[in-house]
Amino acid sequence: MPTRRPLHEMTRDLTDVAAGRRPADLVVRNGRWVNVCSGEIVDGTDVAVLGPRIAYCGPDAGPTIGADTTVVEADGRFLVPGLLDAHMHVESTMLSVRRFAAAVLPRGTTGAFIDPHEIANVLGLAGVRLMVDEARATPMRIYVQVPSCVPSAPGLETSGAEFGPGEVAEAMGWDGVIGLGEVMNYPGVAAGDERLHGEIAATLKAGGVVGGHYASPDLGVPFHAYAAAGPSDCHEGTRAEDVVARVRQGMYAMVRESSAWRDLAAQIGAVTAGGIDPRRVLLCTDDRHAGTLLREGHMDDVVRLAIREGLPPMTAIRMATLNTAEHFGVALDVGCIAPGRYADFLLVGDLERFEVTRVIAAGETVARDGKLAVEMRPFEVPDRARRSVRIGRRLDRSDFVVRAPETAKTARCRVIEIVENQAPTRAVTAELPVVDGVVSPGEGTGIAHLAVIERHRGSGRIGRGFVRGFGLEGRCALASTVAHDSHNLLVLGSDPDAMAAAAHRVVEIGGGIALVRDGGVIAEIALPIAGLMSEEPIGEVAARAEALHRGLRACGCTAGDAFMTFSLLALPVIPRLRLTDRGLVDVDAFAIVPLFVDGDNP
Amino acid sequence: MPTRRPLHEMTRDLTDVAAGRRPADLVVRNGRWVNVCSGEIVDGTDVAVLGPRIAYCGPDAGPTIGADTTVVEADGRFLVPGLLDAHMHVESTMLSVRRFAAAVLPRGTTGAFIDPHEIANVLGLAGVRLMVDEARATPMRIYVQVPSCVPSAPGLETSGAEFGPGEVAEAMGWDGVIGLGEVMNYPGVAAGDERLHGEIAATLKAGGVVGGHYASPDLGVPFHAYAAAGPSDCHEGTRAEDVVARVRQGMYAMVRESSAWRDLAAQIGAVTAGGIDPRRVLLCTDDRHAGTLLREGHMDDVVRLAIREGLPPMTAIRMATLNTAEHFGVALDVGCIAPGRYADFLLVGDLERFEVTRVIAAGETVARDGKLAVEMRPFEVPDRARRSVRIGRRLDRSDFVVRAPETAKTARCRVIEIVENQAPTRAVTAELPVVDGVVSPGEGTGIAHLAVIERHRGSGRIGRGFVRGFGLEGRCALASTVAHDSHNLLVLGSDPDAMAAAAHRVVEIGGGIALVRDGGVIAEIALPIAGLMSEEPIGEVAARAEALHRGLRACGCTAGDAFMTFSLLALPVIPRLRLTDRGLVDVDAFAIVPLFVDGDNP
Repeated sequence: MPTRRPLHEMTRDLTDVAAGRRPADLVVRNGRWVNVCSGEIVDGTDVAVLGPRIAYCGPDAGPTIGADTTVVEADGRFLVPGLLDAHMHVESTMLSVRRFAAAVLPRGTTGAFIDPHEIANVLGLAGVRLMVDEARATPMRIYVQVPSCVPSAPGLETSGAEFGPGEVAEAMGWDGVIGLGEVMNYPGVAAGDERLHGEIAATLKAGGVVGGHYASPDLGVPFHAYAAAGPSDCHEGTRAEDVVARVRQGMYAMVRESSAWRDLAAQIGAVTAGGIDPRRVLLCTDDRHAGTLLREGHMDDVVRLAIREGLPPMTAIRMATLNTAEHFGVALDVGCIAPGRYADFLLVGDLERFEVTRVIAAGETVARDGKLAVEMRPFEVPDRARRSVRIGRRLDRSDFVVRAPETAKTARCRVIEIVENQAPTRAVTAELPVVDGVVSPGEGTGIAHLAVIERHRGSGRIGRGFVRGFGLEGRCALASTVAHDSHNLLVLGSDPDAMAAAAHRVVEIGGGIALVRDGGVIAEIALPIAGLMSEEPIGEVAARAEALHRGLRACGCTAGDAFMTFSLLALPVIPRLRLTDRGLVDVDAFAIVPLFVDGDNP
Repeated sequence: MPTRRPLHEMTRDLTDVAAGRRPADLVVRNGRWVNVCSGEIVDGTDVAVLGPRIAYCGPDAGPTIGADTTVVEADGRFLVPGLLDAHMHVESTMLSVRRFAAAVLPRGTTGAFIDPHEIANVLGLAGVRLMVDEARATPMRIYVQVPSCVPSAPGLETSGAEFGPGEVAEAMGWDGVIGLGEVMNYPGVAAGDERLHGEIAATLKAGGVVGGHYASPDLGVPFHAYAAAGPSDCHEGTRAEDVVARVRQGMYAMVRESSAWRDLAAQIGAVTAGGIDPRRVLLCTDDRHAGTLLREGHMDDVVRLAIREGLPPMTAIRMATLNTAEHFGVALDVGCIAPGRYADFLLVGDLERFEVTRVIAAGETVARDGKLAVEMRPFEVPDRARRSVRIGRRLDRSDFVVRAPETAKTARCRVIEIVENQAPTRAVTAELPVVDGVVSPGEGTGIAHLAVIERHRGSGRIGRGFVRGFGLEGRCALASTVAHDSHNLLVLGSDPDAMAAAAHRVVEIGGGIALVRDGGVIAEIALPIAGLMSEEPIGEVAARAEALHRGLRACGCTAGDAFMTFSLLALPVIPRLRLTDRGLVDVDAFAIVPLFVDGDNP
């Protein structure tokens, strides 16, 4: 695998090749150059490559061919710049960076702008560093953003790290770090929060790009206040008018097509019908699960969809290449096929169907006909990342039991009610029976136990509560260290014994997900890297996720995309009621509230 | 004049204004927002400004208006981003940076990317520094490029400084320096010259933009070799196919409309008819004289011309705003009207006529109806810059006399022959009479004396030769310290006494231009800043240039744009024969050649 080297080390060598004084390492002949810079298709184009970079694009690379030059005949296929994902979280795939790269390179994604937000909440800057370092073990060009909101709600939850302007400034100095990850606390930004503006300032001062995340439909004063704070992009729009508003304010509108949030069709009309110039519109996946990657694809899928939704192929491709590179200020490295740039490009037989037949990354063929053709470099996951689940003791049923106040016969409790296929929850109350001084979710109520165990510092702190809507039957429990954003150990169950068993199993496998039914583990996914990522190939991870899904159905769980809904139950920045290790959080009040109505916290 | 402050110092304040928590300093109401980002005209737009930056753009800035807010009614006029000149040399105007800013701000130019190539040849990095510092005394946002080719031809001429990778790296660390100035030695770049590639590498390593200058019509191998070396733009194209070639190679094509080189009409067809996407096409002036600025304008004139040549106003404006800002990576500061950006924008009554009625720069109204409405800040030109003419002795007629070899009656000399309205010269020979051992240009030959006196180090070195084509009559001489690129003291004359008088006058006034006829100075322009720039207002400088032009006519000079042709006679990188302080230079051979054919240098 050729090492990616900065352009400033290579200008003489590239010039020598272009001038015919030195042979190229690779020449691709007779392609149809999808020239995203000029907006043309230029037939009969040759590309000559030296090491990781392009030396020549033009009608005849013959003079650059030497005895040892690899020559690939494009035979009139299209030469397309390698696709770039403008915003995504590798952790959402549950794959390590190497396994992720192995999965998406054959799809034509050669670059990505990743926000390692999840691992940062577990391992802090060391987690960000891990992602930066592991990215170098792949042929992809991965740019890393420093997560901005670690934790999401300081004081209301316990995460493995806290980031402020100092952490951001430090990471901005690392090679491979491109800017600040989505500044999700948009009310805080609009309110002038000092820490958030400090992080933004540290990023801008270092020349980085500030990623935005304005997740409200209100395009009035709060939106304008957010826009004035410096974020350069936003991927949280869901309507065509959101694209219009963002581009007008000088931001780049990122149109997202994730596993759960399918926002492209509703937004792209801003371009196809609304007359918005597409140059500041980008495509991204944000969060795609392993199963979606396997079944539908990655950026290739998003480009295909954009074309089906009415964009000319050139426009759709630009939204996944040049536009993105320009936004992040890296268009001398990626985003187009031109001299000096990294040799990251694809051979594509038909632009509309966008079937990628060969993928060249850093000057080497890394995939052919959808199959990976290269090994990742060895990479040692630091030991610390494998020891991220720290509970401090063996959990048992008593940890999951909710003691009732004094001698009550029933207890009036705050209960989280999930809303199918939506992230927000409802805050309801329920009168729950008390048996032997212990609050029970009751029979036929659809209510289950929920617990969050702090797992970063071994404090033993547990938040306990109840949730309605998953519809568990029998004695079963689901435990997971994937629990946004602090990723404590989140446990859902109909029975404290099952909960203890599931939680213990997750601890045993060093982090991950375990589903217990009638005393036995019926599905599990080991996620040894920070309790978030597997080191297994995508097929294995997707199969395990599918088995988990089937297991949940077997447990009577009827909710659509139950695991995702579950994994957001501890995220205290999405309305309205959440549970963290510190207790129930009323998100609207941004405060801890007692489990018992008019009572104290248990 | 509000001080330009980096965005990272202002995000909280701007957010406060946009949120209505703090009053704006300036609000412009009810404009038609020329939104270069989205490509739309958005009617009924208000803009709120705090200090030098924009806090809000939207339908109602009412909440940002306080008791002390200045409110300007746009009354439906267009709000256009301040124009940016993508490539230019202030020295070509013969104006100081402050006088230049005073001249172009009323035209709507609020930003420029300048290559202080001329002053660098005289004063070295101190000259570059002077321009950077003086730029801060203006309300303009001027970005400075480090000149790359100082001197133009090392070894063949004596300049005041020599730049290499070290100088470039040093200046790249200065605030206000954006990249490397046009790398003019394109054959050297294509040949892999180590110093040039070192300068390019130093620029890229520091994150700067490498300015290109490929001045050949050959779009084959030499062009591709140049393109592989890292230059990101080029302003030397003259044909539509030059635009196409540059954009395809991932460069930005700068379309130039200078005083002498009028390249827009011939190139813009690449966009209007050729289908090239305009986003990587920029407009620039390169070299505009004071007279052109006064009579025709600056970037406003170029934008008008682009519209007349068939571009939609939005496209033409983008080529002078957003495209340029994006190219140089400064689109968070300039190039569009959007929150966070500098409040550099224009009120324009009609887009096609492009008449600028108000200019706001750094948040302040700096011009109204074509009149400057602001004072520049005081700026002290460093003493060293005023003492740049160092001859070391008083020049007299003997300095300009060419001694013949031994006892010859005639001498066969190499003679520079000028070509009207073209930069290249012809290399001819002539049999010149020898009188009293001195070579005379002869009567009725159209040949005159030419001399170049080294003026930086006081070495006393003089190069002597002859030139044909200016058509001087009587005893007259023209002397100038504007003599590209080394800017030695260049003297043209029909008579050695007149030459000594003109040269002496230039020394006396501390640098500049003097025209002597029949023993008296009939026109002069004092250029005390490095012998290149005046501190007088543009009207004065233009009038003096006009008087010089009339004086040259009075001296019988018939050549078109005689002064420009004259001022290039010492530039040993334009074919074919030139004169420097080291002697005659055969540009094709890139070597000093003797004045006498088959003889030694005098």
